[in-house]
Amino acid sequence: MKHHTLRVSPQTVHWGYFSKAVAASLVLRSGDRATIETLTHHANDDHERMIAGDPGAESVFAWTREHKAVPRRGAGPATGPFKLGAGEGLGVHLLTGPVVVEDAEPGDVLEVRILDVRPRPSCNHCYAGRCFGSNAAASWGFHYRDLIEEPKPREVVTIFELDTSGEPFARAVYNYVWTPQTDPDGRVHANIDYPGVRVDPASVTKREGILRNVRVPARLHFGTMGLAPAESDFVSSIPPGHTGGNIDDWRIGKGATMYYPVAVPGAFFSVGDPHAAQGDSELGGTAIETSLTGDFEFILHKQADLGGTLLEGLDHPLLETPEFWSVYGFTYPNYLAALGPEAQTLIAARSSLDPAMRDAFRKLRRFLMTVHRLSEDEAIALLSVAADFGVTQVVDANWGVHGSIRRNLFNSA
Amino acid sequence: MKHHTLRVSPQTVHWGYFSKAVAASLVLRSGDRATIETLTHHANDDHERMIAGDPGAESVFAWTREHKAVPRRGAGPATGPFKLGAGEGLGVHLLTGPVVVEDAEPGDVLEVRILDVRPRPSCNHCYAGRCFGSNAAASWGFHYRDLIEEPKPREVVTIFELDTSGEPFARAVYNYVWTPQTDPDGRVHANIDYPGVRVDPASVTKREGILRNVRVPARLHFGTMGLAPAESDFVSSIPPGHTGGNIDDWRIGKGATMYYPVAVPGAFFSVGDPHAAQGDSELGGTAIETSLTGDFEFILHKQADLGGTLLEGLDHPLLETPEFWSVYGFTYPNYLAALGPEAQTLIAARSSLDPAMRDAFRKLRRFLMTVHRLSEDEAIALLSVAADFGVTQVVDANWGVHGSIRRNLFNSA
Repeated sequence: MKHHTLRVSPQTVHWGYFSKAVAASLVLRSGDRATIETLTHHANDDHERMIAGDPGAESVFAWTREHKAVPRRGAGPATGPFKLGAGEGLGVHLLTGPVVVEDAEPGDVLEVRILDVRPRPSCNHCYAGRCFGSNAAASWGFHYRDLIEEPKPREVVTIFELDTSGEPFARAVYNYVWTPQTDPDGRVHANIDYPGVRVDPASVTKREGILRNVRVPARLHFGTMGLAPAESDFVSSIPPGHTGGNIDDWRIGKGATMYYPVAVPGAFFSVGDPHAAQGDSELGGTAIETSLTGDFEFILHKQADLGGTLLEGLDHPLLETPEFWSVYGFTYPNYLAALGPEAQTLIAARSSLDPAMRDAFRKLRRFLMTVHRLSEDEAIALLSVAADFGVTQVVDANWGVHGSIRRNLFNSA
Repeated sequence: MKHHTLRVSPQTVHWGYFSKAVAASLVLRSGDRATIETLTHHANDDHERMIAGDPGAESVFAWTREHKAVPRRGAGPATGPFKLGAGEGLGVHLLTGPVVVEDAEPGDVLEVRILDVRPRPSCNHCYAGRCFGSNAAASWGFHYRDLIEEPKPREVVTIFELDTSGEPFARAVYNYVWTPQTDPDGRVHANIDYPGVRVDPASVTKREGILRNVRVPARLHFGTMGLAPAESDFVSSIPPGHTGGNIDDWRIGKGATMYYPVAVPGAFFSVGDPHAAQGDSELGGTAIETSLTGDFEFILHKQADLGGTLLEGLDHPLLETPEFWSVYGFTYPNYLAALGPEAQTLIAARSSLDPAMRDAFRKLRRFLMTVHRLSEDEAIALLSVAADFGVTQVVDANWGVHGSIRRNLFNSA
């Protein structure tokens, strides 16, 4: 067993997509562990608090007219002319990786244990040691076309501070309405439509004293984590799917284990979109987006060994915590296969919870029938009286419903 | 303060509907308490275990060619000719009540505190003191047109026993596939389409040894509880709505408080559909349907006194527990008003989680803005990072999504 360290740098992150085609940041073997840094792609919502003085963050976010450290940000075109910028923001999340797992082949399952998760403190001497995050109530939020106060519509950024002195919690610092921001290449972003654009503090009106006396208990987790799909070389990081990705379940934190079906040789694991807290649904479009570092353990389960285990027949992501197993239903279980070559843009117009609920039902039924050897009638009864279905997210194009079953239901004589 | 007792009898229950037009079973004043018995309408799935020897249950379920103790079962026609029976099964739940609250007027809010909930033990000497329930994987279940094992489709009844010796849990006893059952009036019920039809044990094949080593932790609660709507004299008990009803949230148990807007003079509160356990979604169509007795306290809040309280502007059911508040979103917030005279039949074809999610979002935003005096931007941020939305049910025609916010987020300086 080897313990690796993967720090963030322009060479160890990729921005806005999963990919089987980019160079590995790290190669490891089953059983190895790795400490992996991740950065929130919202850090430039408050550059002073979340980037300034942090060599890793500064290196990744570096962008001047002469030099853009990570040019491509999204699965869209990498060569211009651009409307928004390279990658065209078709995908937004800063992901660390890919981590290539030796001997991983399609049909295998990769187990990823999250051993620990820690916030990344500010390196700005003004805020040294303090931790911050950003929540953007954005144009892709569920609320956006359904606002009641003026001006409508509007995007709003709320900066939170994370208090880690005891049981960690977040508290709002200030918020502002998004105003058009000009990037170093001269493009004006009237909306939050391209990741990593630095907000000019002079251009926005900060409102302090907000959410007074409100404490949000922390739920440190990785919103986006998974493997590269086979269908395309560049896959937008926004819609989650059969190899995981942007699932946005706050339960994917310390102590959780995720299982992913391997779709390409080497597995190509990436992780990012770190969150300090999120509710089920991620209603406004984002969580408290906060840079985090995790300790992970990787275990490769070869296809030939899956029979009779928890992983038999698994063709979708599965969460295991000490308390329960969860499956993830999506509007389309594999939208890339279902919607064809234009899937990555078509999916946004197809969002619905109803098919996601159907998918979660089918996956959890399969789990009970395959892994727990129940008849269909036993499985349906148990689903009805003991399984809980929740709204994972309604903001990631391929909307999600998770189905959970408690582990302590079983094997209790 | 007075403590009343309301036992089940043909005179104190009504079957399959809420009504502002039926005679009160009990009249009480704000501040009074009542012990109220409720019966599961599924008790005849196993008459020996859940009805035999129980004077209250026997009196309500009594049905011979000569005598049907509670003829009307549903909001449908009460005079024949019938396809299914009086009331036509448009609504299925046995409800105890109505409880009329003195001085209650439209615009007021009725607070109902659930002080205690106890299972109703079998009175059959063979099972004396033991508690049973039934789960029906029924034609209205989410799974029904999506079965994989033969014969398809099928309805399946699973009988559970509730162990109350320690922390209560349920264990399956046996199950059977529903076979056509002939009621005392000679009508054959090929499906579970009319409540209270006694299953002939000789007509079904009992399968024992099912769900071996599976324990379902109890979640004793009332699936259906609420007030009579104003729109119609007889309102099917199946779709939940603005005055509550068949919400089917397992959190509506001991220690919970529900608030309902009063729609008719006297409020006309009814309660039933008792459940021993249910998962979020009630996937197969029912929970573990088990007769329960509850202790309730009723507090009337007059419209003039609501300003500045938790109840200001409340026009939908609200749950308060020691940990959180929950609002209930439905496909239609008030389907009776939205769908017109045929609402009670039309609603079944309109079920969708997407508008229910929208409704839950709007209700929780209103709660945060009105009760907690947040700006819309504060409310949206908080909803995204700290509120949890779950699938309440996908089987009650007017599908439900609940939105919950933890109470400990607030007023923590």
